[in-house]
Order: sequence, then structure tokens, then C-alpha cells
Amino acid sequence: MYDGIVQDLIDEFGRLPGIGPKSAQRIAFHILQTPSFDVSRLSQLLAEVREKVRFCEICGNVSEQDRCSICRDPRRNQTLICVVEDAKDVAAIERTREFRGLYHVLGGAISPIAGVGPDDLRITPLMQRLADGTVQEVILATNPNLEGEATATYLSRLLTSLQITVTRLASGLPVGGDLEYADEVTLGRAFEGRRSV
Amino acid sequence: MYDGIVQDLIDEFGRLPGIGPKSAQRIAFHILQTPSFDVSRLSQLLAEVREKVRFCEICGNVSEQDRCSICRDPRRNQTLICVVEDAKDVAAIERTREFRGLYHVLGGAISPIAGVGPDDLRITPLMQRLADGTVQEVILATNPNLEGEATATYLSRLLTSLQITVTRLASGLPVGGDLEYADEVTLGRAFEGRRSV
Repeated sequence: MYDGIVQDLIDEFGRLPGIGPKSAQRIAFHILQTPSFDVSRLSQLLAEVREKVRFCEICGNVSEQDRCSICRDPRRNQTLICVVEDAKDVAAIERTREFRGLYHVLGGAISPIAGVGPDDLRITPLMQRLADGTVQEVILATNPNLEGEATATYLSRLLTSLQITVTRLASGLPVGGDLEYADEVTLGRAFEGRRSV
Repeated sequence: MYDGIVQDLIDEFGRLPGIGPKSAQRIAFHILQTPSFDVSRLSQLLAEVREKVRFCEICGNVSEQDRCSICRDPRRNQTLICVVEDAKDVAAIERTREFRGLYHVLGGAISPIAGVGPDDLRITPLMQRLADGTVQEVILATNPNLEGEATATYLSRLLTSLQITVTRLASGLPVGGDLEYADEVTLGRAFEGRRSV
């Protein structure tokens, strides 16, 4: 629809997740029409991220060094590991400031439909981290959906042989949410997990 | 939340229109975790677009040459000009394949709130294009909102002195839409503009 490279740029933005053709067009035109938008800075960051960012050799979180800032921090509770699917989940949990232990990023969840089995996840490195007996509790913080639950179940069975407490994040009503709009499964979980006040 | 440049890249994507912090994070991680994503191609396109793409000296549409492909095309109807707010609107109208005339991009719409007056739009170049008497009809295709209507009204008054037919795109129910869900103004316009069948 557009002359050559404008369309090429739109197509390239359209390849990114969550960006449809309309958004891609809007972004390309914004870049075209905003002289103050620093194109070279974005390009430089893209190149730098590709070059410098790797995954922490211990936990699998994103890092600019061999070990991420959390694994390097001696003040973190070394007896507690929170297992998550993705590095994005680490950032989400860090934002709560509720958790001061370490993480382990699996790199996905078990999903027969997507062809992801236990061997595709970073489960062996997790078992190695647990081998020396330092860790006393593993918190399974995989997503509360089919794949995440399957992964949590798989891991909890695998961990029963070790002398480690295994816990799962609570399911229930989202804070600020409306009971009326909660789905049945979530509402059911909220009843199951009810606490005395 | 993230180590250095990952957060920088997220922030940079977050500066683009329509991309919130969550989408920006998702995009940055996609680029990080997808080795096949061609970072250098995106960078190259960004630089090329900045370097090569300009605005057509006649109509103001995006173009890789001094004149855009539409203004260069002798088969287009030279007696008909469709006035739009933005180059994106040219692409939207071209997609319909209904219009074979020329365009004129204003570069916005009159908006006292945003501080955009007639002098900020490409109205003088439009008047110059109309001066030689070739153009017989001007179609005002500004957006059917407050600013677009104000701009259309302003232009239609300005053009009454010339021997040119001035028309406005029809307002009414969107095709495939549901009458029940149409807002009152649109439904009112649909009644006003009703045609015998």
C-alpha cells in the first residue's frame, strides 16, 4: 500500500508480538513524522541487547553478566527458591517486594499441545541446585493455567523424594476485583483456600 | 526492574504510540529470546526510512521521491482532489480502490484545544493547486469527529469563492455494524442521509 521501505518497516514492526497491522502502521508513521524520535538510540539498544544480554548461568534470569544481580546478591535468602516459567515473571514478583529468596526460571511450561515436555525445561539445573541441601523451600510459581498447573504437579512429584518443603502460590480472587465477575474456577479456589480472620 | 539495557530497551519501545509498559516488556523479551529475529534488519530499516522517506512536494503524502507515486501517475483523475488529515488516510482510501483522483494531506485538523489553527495545516498549498482551474471537485475527507468537521467547515467556506464542487464523505452506519449498537449521532446522520432504493 505504501512505497517500498515504509511498508517494509510496517511489516517488520508487525512481526513483533502484540502488534497488529494498524499498530505497526501507527508506529512507523510516528517514527517518520517525529523528528525528535531517536532512531539511532533504538538501533543501538537493539544491537547492545543482542550482544550483551545473556541468561544467568544459575537461575536462567536475564542478565548482563554470567550471574544475574539476584543470584549475586548475598543478602537474598539462599534457602528459598521460587520457580517461575519466564524471566518476565521474575520482574513481576520483584515488583511486589514480598519475596527475598532466589529464583529459578524454567523457560516455559509443560504443554503436550505445544510439544513442550519436561526435558525442554530447565528442570535438571533446578535439581542440581537443590542437591547440596541448602535450599529448604521451593515455591512453585508457574502460571495458574493448565500448563502451569501440569508443570507444578510434575515438579511437586519430582521433589517429594527430597527433604524440601514444596509450596504453590495461592489462587483466589484478585484484589480490587469484583466477586460477581470472577469465573467459577477462581471463585471455587477462593472458597477452598479461605482463611479464618 | 531489569538490569540496565534490557530496561532501557523496554523504555524505548514504551515511547512508541500504543505500546504500554507490558507490551514494551513483551516485545523486548521477544527480541531477547528469539535468535531468528533480525535485529539488524529492523535497525537498517529505521535508518533508511529516516534517510530516504520524505513528503511529496505536491500532496504531502509519504514518498521516497520528491513526488509520490500517486501524483506521478498520469492515469489518476487530475480534476478530483481528496483532502485528508494524514498520510495514513491516503493508504486507507487507496485500499478501497474506489477513488482514482489525487490527494491533499493537510497534516492534521483544526483543534483550538491542541493549539492547531488553519495556518498550521497545508491549506495554502491546497489553494495554490486549485488556482489554475484544472480541479473540478474537492472531496473533504477529514475525520467525522469534532476537529475534522471544523476543518471541513472551514475549508468549504474558503472554497465557496472558487468555481469548484465541494463534497464531504457520507456519514452513516458502518457496514456490517449493528443498528442497536450505533451511537445516536451516527444513527441521526444515517437518517439524514437516507437514500431511496
